[in-house]
Amino acid sequence: MTDPQPIDARLERLRAQLPGLRLTTDPADAEHYGRDWTRRWTPAPLAVALPASVDEVATIVRWAVDEGVAIVPSGGRTGLSGGAVAANGELVLSLERMNRVLDFDAVDRALTVQAGIALEAVHNAAREHGLVYPVDFAARGSCSIGGNIATNAGGIRVIRYGNTREWIAGLKVVTGAGEVLELNRALIKNSSGYDLRQLMIGSEGTLGIVVEATLRLADPPPPTNVMLLALPSFETLMQVFAAFRERLTLEAFEFFTDRALHHVLAHGAQKPFDEVHPFYVVTEFAVGDEAKEAAAMAAFEFCLENGLVNDGVISQSDAQAAQLWRLREGITEALAKYKPYKNDVSVRISAMPAFLAETQALLAREYPQFDVVWFGHIGDGNLHINVLKPDDADYAVFVDQCEHVTQLLSDALARHGGSISAEHGIGLVKKPYLLGTRSAAEIELMRGIKRVLDPKGLLNPGKVFDA
Amino acid sequence: MTDPQPIDARLERLRAQLPGLRLTTDPADAEHYGRDWTRRWTPAPLAVALPASVDEVATIVRWAVDEGVAIVPSGGRTGLSGGAVAANGELVLSLERMNRVLDFDAVDRALTVQAGIALEAVHNAAREHGLVYPVDFAARGSCSIGGNIATNAGGIRVIRYGNTREWIAGLKVVTGAGEVLELNRALIKNSSGYDLRQLMIGSEGTLGIVVEATLRLADPPPPTNVMLLALPSFETLMQVFAAFRERLTLEAFEFFTDRALHHVLAHGAQKPFDEVHPFYVVTEFAVGDEAKEAAAMAAFEFCLENGLVNDGVISQSDAQAAQLWRLREGITEALAKYKPYKNDVSVRISAMPAFLAETQALLAREYPQFDVVWFGHIGDGNLHINVLKPDDADYAVFVDQCEHVTQLLSDALARHGGSISAEHGIGLVKKPYLLGTRSAAEIELMRGIKRVLDPKGLLNPGKVFDA
Repeated sequence: MTDPQPIDARLERLRAQLPGLRLTTDPADAEHYGRDWTRRWTPAPLAVALPASVDEVATIVRWAVDEGVAIVPSGGRTGLSGGAVAANGELVLSLERMNRVLDFDAVDRALTVQAGIALEAVHNAAREHGLVYPVDFAARGSCSIGGNIATNAGGIRVIRYGNTREWIAGLKVVTGAGEVLELNRALIKNSSGYDLRQLMIGSEGTLGIVVEATLRLADPPPPTNVMLLALPSFETLMQVFAAFRERLTLEAFEFFTDRALHHVLAHGAQKPFDEVHPFYVVTEFAVGDEAKEAAAMAAFEFCLENGLVNDGVISQSDAQAAQLWRLREGITEALAKYKPYKNDVSVRISAMPAFLAETQALLAREYPQFDVVWFGHIGDGNLHINVLKPDDADYAVFVDQCEHVTQLLSDALARHGGSISAEHGIGLVKKPYLLGTRSAAEIELMRGIKRVLDPKGLLNPGKVFDA
Repeated sequence: MTDPQPIDARLERLRAQLPGLRLTTDPADAEHYGRDWTRRWTPAPLAVALPASVDEVATIVRWAVDEGVAIVPSGGRTGLSGGAVAANGELVLSLERMNRVLDFDAVDRALTVQAGIALEAVHNAAREHGLVYPVDFAARGSCSIGGNIATNAGGIRVIRYGNTREWIAGLKVVTGAGEVLELNRALIKNSSGYDLRQLMIGSEGTLGIVVEATLRLADPPPPTNVMLLALPSFETLMQVFAAFRERLTLEAFEFFTDRALHHVLAHGAQKPFDEVHPFYVVTEFAVGDEAKEAAAMAAFEFCLENGLVNDGVISQSDAQAAQLWRLREGITEALAKYKPYKNDVSVRISAMPAFLAETQALLAREYPQFDVVWFGHIGDGNLHINVLKPDDADYAVFVDQCEHVTQLLSDALARHGGSISAEHGIGLVKKPYLLGTRSAAEIELMRGIKRVLDPKGLLNPGKVFDA
């Protein structure tokens, strides 16, 4: 982390202002902190700053305003949309060292944390107090709460607990002018003008840098069971969803295709059924008393009797529940070696069957050679599409083709009233397609709002939209 | 509604553009539509327009931009902060005629309505489909959903279901430039740039006119019981809250003081206990199976054994539940004849005891002659303060004294990290006190955001803050 080389005069002036600031121009650090989980841009930051306090963050931003240096706020860099990429001489402002729990209040059921804390560390802190922070997804060990807030992260429990937005009681942010704002004071009811907290959530670091957050916590979930279902079609899947939602309190309702299962099994998971089926569901629901267990069996039997499911298993232990979940949660890891082209889109739940059918047909027609893996969150209208690179395809050609796929998806989403980004954000990856989801008038208003909060346009410039 | 008199040239031009528009300058209409439930301003609108379509609303706004006429968006006008007052030659744009249900989708559990529909009509429409719209409060018969959205209305079920914000899947709004925006497409997950829907919610008609909303609906609540508790102090009340919240799923947890009960009984309600107690709680919680009923009794017995409650009754029927609720919901009506000065403030739940103690002491010292009635929502940190005009006091003097009370409250809220408006909005009434809740930097950002969405400053000018 030390940097023996002479550095640029702007950085000298930053060092003079903040002698204790951890600041590095080491090429390995630049490489490490200049990218996220996308691999399409070459990191080229001016430097990487790792402040340890809100004051340091605010001073850095004011320095950036004086010097005209752009800032890329940086959390766990697990993003899939290039939102944390620094490829144009920006200063990466990593919140990594600001990773502490600051406060817990049992009456308010509120946990105040610094933005750089990992989601999993938040889970652990909540559990120590007998409560839970219910937003959860596979990157929990690496992603930061600040990044979760910047993208309004969703995940696998949204059907029951909503997105990150629902759990943010208060935020401390540093604006593009270097002002420190305390937003909403962690109040439950506060009708005192515009809710700038809500504006910050999902703004991908383009309006302010989240430095602290007060999170609401929830009661631990009830005992649950996990069921794996095999289904003949997406239409029956929607009927199964209706039947289960009507009878049970669903904690999760996830689907994946036979191609997804194929790859997870090839990656070492245990085969759940002898036969191959077009679609699978992993669902988790509250049990804990006889009435609820009977309701779960009734839902399953209704589906079986009506030909909505082909087969199913229910977890008899926590270990079995984990094994069933692995079939769903292991998909991303199982696909990694194929360098998949990922899209994360949403439509209204009711629009899913038509959107999926249209898009599957379109991909089969345009790119019959592609192995396309679908999975997603039925209760949220959220579909994850992974296109795998054929072994013999040139990577650059493949990426071009996938950009064309995204354009087709974007057009289909515009027709079906959907979003090009359900939970990954727009960043750089989806910026060319934003007009399929948001109107030109909305984008122009976003530009105007950015000018209010970031007058010099220095916070994560070029992400989400061009100024 | 017809207007035989010659009207102003600007209105002539509006009539020429929209020959079918219902437009009135009748003094009775001006009086009726120019005010809300506050009675401190004299209505003096230019005219009242009652459009019947989104197109008419957009045309009116574009006309207003051309003519430089200010617009006051108007719903049920049940507001208590003067947010819908038109006292300066504005055009009142009433959404009253746009009061229809437009769509229901069972898969999405979503109801799309025009903004002028009454909250109670929304409740009824949801119920027809076997679902509920769970935001509820006493003005349900008169208030409109558009007004609810404009103030992020809360009410008596927030502890269980959150504020209005949580139930707004999508919005159609007309900006100050006359542009029609469709915000969020009723999606559950949509991380595609700034969530302008959230910015509109709670903006009190100063950023855009809500013309349509898509509301999420919920499962009907489980069977519930209602308990009335008598308590020796506010400190024990907080302990009772903790004991109940730990053991039960609370649908409501409301408190009021002996002064509140006094007035409700004087207004005809039935006396629940022989003795007088300092504080009372009405709580409603899920029952429906033996375990839950046992938990309710356990919570009560724990409180009784530990001296946290003095007495209590539990509803044995729906009629009794309604009777217990009347003691809480009847307060506002029972106080109406005293022309009470109302404040609606919030702090974090954990800050309530200290804030209440300090404020009660302060009022007793400064205004020992005032009858001060407190009630509120413990689970939301929301306190309603009603100061009753003494019979012999001059109304103008009383109002001046109450403004001083509000200043004292505002100062106490600043110290305790609270909000001068929990759920009523800022409007005109609380504008002088906004700085106790929001920083100067935040207010300046709000001004900037308003300029982006309402460049000419014509939407509800002077409400929330001065431009």
